[in-house]
Amino acid sequence: MPPQPWPDLAGRLVPGGHVLPVRIYFEDTDFSGVVYHGSYIRFMERGRSDFVRLLGVAHTALDAGDHGEPLVFAVHRIDIGYFKPARIDDLVEVTTLVKAVTGARLILIQTVARDGERLTEAEVTIVLVNREGRARRIPDSVRDTLHAAAVATGVA
Amino acid sequence: MPPQPWPDLAGRLVPGGHVLPVRIYFEDTDFSGVVYHGSYIRFMERGRSDFVRLLGVAHTALDAGDHGEPLVFAVHRIDIGYFKPARIDDLVEVTTLVKAVTGARLILIQTVARDGERLTEAEVTIVLVNREGRARRIPDSVRDTLHAAAVATGVA
Amino acid sequence: MPPQPWPDLAGRLVPGGHVLPVRIYFEDTDFSGVVYHGSYIRFMERGRSDFVRLLGVAHTALDAGDHGEPLVFAVHRIDIGYFKPARIDDLVEVTTLVKAVTGARLILIQTVARDGERLTEAEVTIVLVNREGRARRIPDSVRDTLHAAAVATGVA
Amino acid sequence: MPPQPWPDLAGRLVPGGHVLPVRIYFEDTDFSGVVYHGSYIRFMERGRSDFVRLLGVAHTALDAGDHGEPLVFAVHRIDIGYFKPARIDDLVEVTTLVKAVTGARLILIQTVARDGERLTEAEVTIVLVNREGRARRIPDSVRDTLHAAAVATGVA
Repeated sequence: MPPQPWPDLAGRLVPGGHVLPVRIYFEDTDFSGVVYHGSYIRFMERGRSDFVRLLGVAHTALDAGDHGEPLVFAVHRIDIGYFKPARIDDLVEVTTLVKAVTGARLILIQTVARDGERLTEAEVTIVLVNREGRARRIPDSVRDTLHAAAVATGVA
Repeated sequence: MPPQPWPDLAGRLVPGGHVLPVRIYFEDTDFSGVVYHGSYIRFMERGRSDFVRLLGVAHTALDAGDHGEPLVFAVHRIDIGYFKPARIDDLVEVTTLVKAVTGARLILIQTVARDGERLTEAEVTIVLVNREGRARRIPDSVRDTLHAAAVATGVA
Repeated sequence: MPPQPWPDLAGRLVPGGHVLPVRIYFEDTDFSGVVYHGSYIRFMERGRSDFVRLLGVAHTALDAGDHGEPLVFAVHRIDIGYFKPARIDDLVEVTTLVKAVTGARLILIQTVARDGERLTEAEVTIVLVNREGRARRIPDSVRDTLHAAAVATGVA
Repeated sequence: MPPQPWPDLAGRLVPGGHVLPVRIYFEDTDFSGVVYHGSYIRFMERGRSDFVRLLGVAHTALDAGDHGEPLVFAVHRIDIGYFKPARIDDLVEVTTLVKAVTGARLILIQTVARDGERLTEAEVTIVLVNREGRARRIPDSVRDTLHAAAVATGVA
C-alpha cells in the first residue's frame, strides 16, 4: 500500500474511540461572530464518519450492499449542550467515544474541544437504515468492530 | 404601512407559538436521498427567528443594543429526535411552541411535520448572551411577550 | 384543487422568468457580519427549483424517469459577481430570467436584490444529466416550457 | 514552538500557491448522489483561508486591525466550471494558485481534483473590505507576500 499523502486527514483512533481535528472556516461562523450552533452538528458527523472509516466501515461499502441490502447510517437522536463558542481560525478537536452498542443502536458521546476545553458535548444515537428508511439490525461484523472499541474504554 | 408583498414569508402566529412553512431544496438533502439530519437544525432556527420577528423582537434590534447592551440569542441545548425523513421538493411545517420562560432561559418545543405527520421533534433551550458570550437576563419586554404566547397554550 | 395554504412559498412567475423572496437567517451569515458568499449560490438554486416547479417540472418527476431515464439538473458553470452584501433579517428577492435554451443547455441570468437594489448577479449554465453524470438532451416538453418563458422576455 | 499535533491540517504551500486536502462528508452531498455544487464554493474558501494562513496572514489579525482598520477578505467574483462530480468518502485536493495581485485585487485560480483529475475550476477575484464593506488597498505586507508566491509560478 502506498504511503498516505495526508495521514492526519481522517483523525486518529484513541482508546474507546476517535479524535478528529477540525479547522473553523468562514462557512462555519455566523454574524454573531462565533461558530453557528448547527455547524457542530456537521463537525460531529465528520468525526463519526472518519471513526468508522478508520475502523474499516466505509459509507460506500454499506451503501453498495456489502453487508446485505444497501444500508446507511442515520441519526436517531442528538442531545447536545453548548458551553463555549468556537471562533474563526480556531483549531478544535472532535472526540467520539462509543458508549454502547446494542442489536440495532449505536450510542456515542461526542465532544468538541479547543485546547482541551470542552465547547459542546452530545449524546448521539445512531441506527442503520435501508433504502426505505427502516431500521435494520447492525451487521455482526460492524457491531463487533464497534464493540471492541467500546470495550477498550471499559464502558461496554 | 404598505401591504407586505410576501405575507406568508415569516409564517404565522398560532396559539402558543408559530408555524413556518419550509420547502426542501437540493442544499437540504444528502446522498442517502433524504434530508440531511443537520438541516432540521437550520429549519428550527428559521422558525425561532420568524417567531420572535412576528412578536416584534428583531435580531438587528437586539444586536444594536435596543434592550441595553448588544445581545444575541444563543442555543444552550437541543434534544432532537428523528422519526421520519423529509425529501426533495417536500413542503414541511416548522411549529414552535413556548414551553417555559424563566429569568434567563426560554424553552421551546419545535417540530417539523409534513402533511400533519411529525418527522422530527426537539426541545430547545435558548439564552441571550452579550458580546463576550455571557448569559444575560432576558429583558422584561421580551420575556413578557414570550410569556404571553406561552400562556395562550396553557403551558406556562 | 384545494387552496394552497402558503401561496407565496414558491415565488411568482414574471415575464421571462420568476421571482422568489428569501429571508436571511443566522445560517446564511458569517463572522464578517454579512451574508456568506456561498449562501447566494444556495439562494439561486432555490430560485431555479421553484421556477421550474411553477412551470410544472418537478425534480421528483425528472428523477423518477418521467422524461425517459432518470435525470437531474446539474450546474455546468456559474459566473457570479458580488456588489453589495445582504445582512441578517433582510428580505431579498431572487430573480431568475431565461437567457437562452439550446438542445442541451439552459442559460439563466439570476440576481439577488434588496429593495430593488442588485446585490449579486450571475450567469448560470444548467445541463440535465443521467445517473452516470452524462449530459442529456433536454426533453422537448421541458425545453418548450422554458423557451416559452424566454420568448416572453424577448431574449430568445 | 511545540510540534504541531496535526501538521497536515492547513495543507501545504507549493510553488505559486497551495494545496489543501478535503474529505467529502454527508454534509457536502445532495440527493442526486454526488457533491452539491455549492459545496465546492466552500472548499475553495477553505483553500484560500489556509493558503493565506500559511503565508502568515490570519483572518483574526486582519479583523483585529493589525493592518490598520479592521479588514476582511471578500469575494468580488467567481467564475466556476463544473466538469465531473465528487462523491461521498472521496478525498479531493483544492489547489490555489495566484494569478495576479494588483493594488486592490487578488486573482486566484482554484481547482478541485481527485487523483489528479480536475473536477471543477474557478477564477476567483478577492478584495479586502472594511467594516462598512468598502474595498480597501491591500496592505503592502500582504501584497508582497502574495506577490512572492505568484512570482514563484512565473505568472506575475
